[in-house]
Amino acid sequence: MYTTLPPTGMRDFLPREKAVREFVMSEIRDEYKKSGFTEIETSYLENIDNLTGGDGGENTKLIFKIMQRGEKLEKLLAGDAIHADDLADYGLRFDLTLPLVRFYANNRNELPSIFKAIQMGPVFRAERAQKGRYRSFAQCDIDIIGDESNLAEIEIIQTISSTLKRLGFGEFTIKISDRRILKAIVISSGFSEEVFGDVAITLDKLDKIGIEGIRKELNAKNYDTAAIELLLEKSAELESQGLEGIKEMCPEGYDNLKDILDVIGGLADTFKIVFDHTLVRGMGYYTSTIFEITYSDLGYSIAGGGRYDKMIGKISGIDVPAVGFSIGFERIVDILISEERQLNNAQKIALLFDDQKSISEVVTAATKLRQEYDIVSLYRMKKKLGKQLTQLDRAAYTGYGIFRSADEAIEVKPFEKNE
Amino acid sequence: MYTTLPPTGMRDFLPREKAVREFVMSEIRDEYKKSGFTEIETSYLENIDNLTGGDGGENTKLIFKIMQRGEKLEKLLAGDAIHADDLADYGLRFDLTLPLVRFYANNRNELPSIFKAIQMGPVFRAERAQKGRYRSFAQCDIDIIGDESNLAEIEIIQTISSTLKRLGFGEFTIKISDRRILKAIVISSGFSEEVFGDVAITLDKLDKIGIEGIRKELNAKNYDTAAIELLLEKSAELESQGLEGIKEMCPEGYDNLKDILDVIGGLADTFKIVFDHTLVRGMGYYTSTIFEITYSDLGYSIAGGGRYDKMIGKISGIDVPAVGFSIGFERIVDILISEERQLNNAQKIALLFDDQKSISEVVTAATKLRQEYDIVSLYRMKKKLGKQLTQLDRAAYTGYGIFRSADEAIEVKPFEKNE
Repeated sequence: MYTTLPPTGMRDFLPREKAVREFVMSEIRDEYKKSGFTEIETSYLENIDNLTGGDGGENTKLIFKIMQRGEKLEKLLAGDAIHADDLADYGLRFDLTLPLVRFYANNRNELPSIFKAIQMGPVFRAERAQKGRYRSFAQCDIDIIGDESNLAEIEIIQTISSTLKRLGFGEFTIKISDRRILKAIVISSGFSEEVFGDVAITLDKLDKIGIEGIRKELNAKNYDTAAIELLLEKSAELESQGLEGIKEMCPEGYDNLKDILDVIGGLADTFKIVFDHTLVRGMGYYTSTIFEITYSDLGYSIAGGGRYDKMIGKISGIDVPAVGFSIGFERIVDILISEERQLNNAQKIALLFDDQKSISEVVTAATKLRQEYDIVSLYRMKKKLGKQLTQLDRAAYTGYGIFRSADEAIEVKPFEKNE
Repeated sequence: MYTTLPPTGMRDFLPREKAVREFVMSEIRDEYKKSGFTEIETSYLENIDNLTGGDGGENTKLIFKIMQRGEKLEKLLAGDAIHADDLADYGLRFDLTLPLVRFYANNRNELPSIFKAIQMGPVFRAERAQKGRYRSFAQCDIDIIGDESNLAEIEIIQTISSTLKRLGFGEFTIKISDRRILKAIVISSGFSEEVFGDVAITLDKLDKIGIEGIRKELNAKNYDTAAIELLLEKSAELESQGLEGIKEMCPEGYDNLKDILDVIGGLADTFKIVFDHTLVRGMGYYTSTIFEITYSDLGYSIAGGGRYDKMIGKISGIDVPAVGFSIGFERIVDILISEERQLNNAQKIALLFDDQKSISEVVTAATKLRQEYDIVSLYRMKKKLGKQLTQLDRAAYTGYGIFRSADEAIEVKPFEKNE
């Protein structure tokens, strides 16, 4: 059965949407490049073992798997016990970080010792279909690999900030923390090191379930009541003390954030940067600095990232420090489209001709006009010229030229703007 | 097992390659837009029935299929007879034409009556792995939907020609023919209408197997010897007569090609357009005009396309005429890379600083420099400054600035070009 719809959760983009997407992509790319990042591209498909084996967290449950083919598949299906896991050899990438790490491990010798990478492209996740949640969406990442100092964090935050400002998002808030601080609070409250990850998963829900929800969930997980209460108390204390509150509990986290807050705070004008000890961020691979950007009163972040110093070592055997940030491309596009911002002021001309003109003359005339105007498109004149012109005006043409049998030259007239 | 390589036949792109790809993409997009084409994007995945059901020819054998997930998959695997075809619900697109046709059928009411579409993006084919044959590659298509006149062919050929010229491919040859001419020759030689497709498949191999090969293969297929000889004779005749030779045999094909050859021939300067009755082109969906572009003495085409007036009707029930052309993006990129053309002249500055300078001062200085230069990247000064500068020079930086403790301002010096 033939269907005209794309698969569930996948999208097609009409010209208007695609134009906004292309504009935003090229602005982001251009601003990233200004700071010395260079673009790479990785395969859309990855070997299935790479995708399922890492620190991908929840995402590993959402992999679109590619079936084996030909004889291999036939053999598997003819066998006695068929395991779903054996049937797939590749999968679609669910983020751009895992492919980057694989890419770096593979090409390290050809890359500079501090490698500043741009990656922009689609990722795929078999999410449960629901409004506003897509199963394919674009990400726009920058990463610095090979710099252990927090100059990497600073460069990345500065670059993302200038990119957001260029796109017209002036007033945003950068929330920043350090995984080591969270760990210090949890452990100094009486939890063991082993359960830190699990406690963090609950803490990550603060936005959604509040303090009472956290208390309830940790109790349900049967943790020591005294430890839970101490944790919540310490957290409340930090709320009022700010960065100074962790100076003694976690000096390395304090020093790291102090630097970053000072430098970025000094550059900030319309936006601001704040320490937020409640920040967790889901991915297991973050080792220290984590950050997130919120805009206006939207209930979600429009960019996020952090430092992942151990991930490359797991794959290549050699530890290499790394920091990355990802812009929520789809969210930014949605905001720009909903705000109906005017993104383009190209001169778009419709060249109308009648049947008395030979196609050869018309095409020659169009070729000439294309040297002068950004966009020139040919249309046969219809009988109801007035109606045709109204339609062209609506289709965002800025002007038109009429080329009739008697005309030697074409006079281009602008559409009168009524707005 | 973790591997650092992309899947077989898939590729990663290092910064240098990616820069060329991005440059070529943006040049193509820009030139397409000048002629009034607008870009759309379709889903990377398609419902599997769409992919396997159409006129995709050989490509339908090369689909990367996506496995069902969750309960559905479990149920299937628990069943008695497992069919490979049931296990997949989606597949990766193998070209951009089928998705375009589906897109058009779905969005027709929101599109102009003559719709000029740009589509650029990756397609996926599970080809047998071999040198230079990729399993994922980019296509850059333009299509005009809704214009039954050969102005559509002319607009498309003109646009592709100016795009190739812009990319520096001045001297190319456009080969053009009409499926109806081929059909007229085959049938007037004594073959039945039903076997036309099969005879055409053999004729398509002329480049590879020559006249003798054609004769042998048609004989092996047990066609009437007299018909085969007459076909080869007529074909040889056409070789010498050119377009005039088909004036009576196929008047509608003659009129169509005469128009196009006249108009494009008039515009041609460095390139040329020629009638080539031996052109076949593999896809079953072409109905009349077919074209192909060859460059220099490469043994393959760098662009190709044709008119497919029946394909949209098959899906939507309403016949809509359509013409399309696809640029062989990978081939063009390969040629540009092998010719080592200089594609970019951005001012790329390295800002070197020592530890006496605070990060805050350095970042502020870089922010200022970024208003003046295209690209500014920060580097800590190394002890062996001379060696560091040599490396930056090699990494295509055009200049550098040094920012030491005592410096108030930064003087940017160009790298001396030794070449």
